[in-house]
Amino acid sequence: MLAEKFKNNTIILASASPRRQELFKELQIPFSIDVKSVEEVYPTNLKGEEITHYLAILKATAFDSSICENDIIITSDTIVWLDKKALEKPKNTNEAIKMLQKLSGKSHQVITSVCIKTISKQLVFSDNTIVHFKKLSSEEINFYVENYHPFDKAGGYGIQEWIGFIGVTSIEGSYFNVMGLPVNKLYEELKKF
Amino acid sequence: MLAEKFKNNTIILASASPRRQELFKELQIPFSIDVKSVEEVYPTNLKGEEITHYLAILKATAFDSSICENDIIITSDTIVWLDKKALEKPKNTNEAIKMLQKLSGKSHQVITSVCIKTISKQLVFSDNTIVHFKKLSSEEINFYVENYHPFDKAGGYGIQEWIGFIGVTSIEGSYFNVMGLPVNKLYEELKKF
Repeated sequence: MLAEKFKNNTIILASASPRRQELFKELQIPFSIDVKSVEEVYPTNLKGEEITHYLAILKATAFDSSICENDIIITSDTIVWLDKKALEKPKNTNEAIKMLQKLSGKSHQVITSVCIKTISKQLVFSDNTIVHFKKLSSEEINFYVENYHPFDKAGGYGIQEWIGFIGVTSIEGSYFNVMGLPVNKLYEELKKF
Repeated sequence: MLAEKFKNNTIILASASPRRQELFKELQIPFSIDVKSVEEVYPTNLKGEEITHYLAILKATAFDSSICENDIIITSDTIVWLDKKALEKPKNTNEAIKMLQKLSGKSHQVITSVCIKTISKQLVFSDNTIVHFKKLSSEEINFYVENYHPFDKAGGYGIQEWIGFIGVTSIEGSYFNVMGLPVNKLYEELKKF
């Protein structure tokens, strides 16, 4: 239904994440992918959604010199927020194991910000989901990291992978937000845009 | 890891639902599928998880005459529970539309019971997730029912389909339970079994 509304626009999803691309596809609006390389650095005083807002806008700003009349650029950023710190993507096996040890037996927040940008307008919004992990055993953590290599995932896990199936006892909020894109909020914002 | 524990057992998932089969696969234990035909009728005085418990056990009882020494039979039943009534699978387009109109703008519960049965032992447990739907427009309901034919789904919707992406604003509990199998609880119960 949004396809009709945006038939004269070019929607560009600026994300290399196959999960986000899959989720966006579910909205059934034609779109293309274009990712500009951005150094994902943010001021150290930022907290929680201030970080994801900052990075989603930074990713959108990278299109400033190339955006065309009817383009709608969609960028986003997701972090895992635990004990007032952001967990980023783990660089190696050791870091991934340490992150999962931190998440084990606790609740954390998954925060995603999305930026919708045209040549004349820019909108940023975010969504926040609480995720509860059971106490994970070392065997479970090692098995997951060895077999799934979660190095492209904030916090070192994918909720739609084995560790999510066996380890996440419950969530409060949007599941798709944890996967990386708050599709229901994005749908509503696009309807109003 | 459970594969090692159950290497001398035959695990039989008694469900024709492709979603349940997919979810069970994620536990990475070898299993086969065998579904016995059961008339899914329950006493009218039952409520909520009493219904799913009753039906999960009924489905397991159908294996009484054929269960072998090392078999582990897993059956389950899911209902959508709204305003103290169970919503079953819609029989046609009209019923599906009416169910979604009932769910629109409200919260409901998705209750799944699972029965694990061997020749000498039987265990039943359940899981309960609260699902919040935004106010759905007639256009959205009609589009979904016409394109997705949700006649095999309790409550007339699949959370992993378009209507789940655009319509479910948040959940409290397990997402996979809403899809039809509380995999994290099942994993814990199998570990202890």
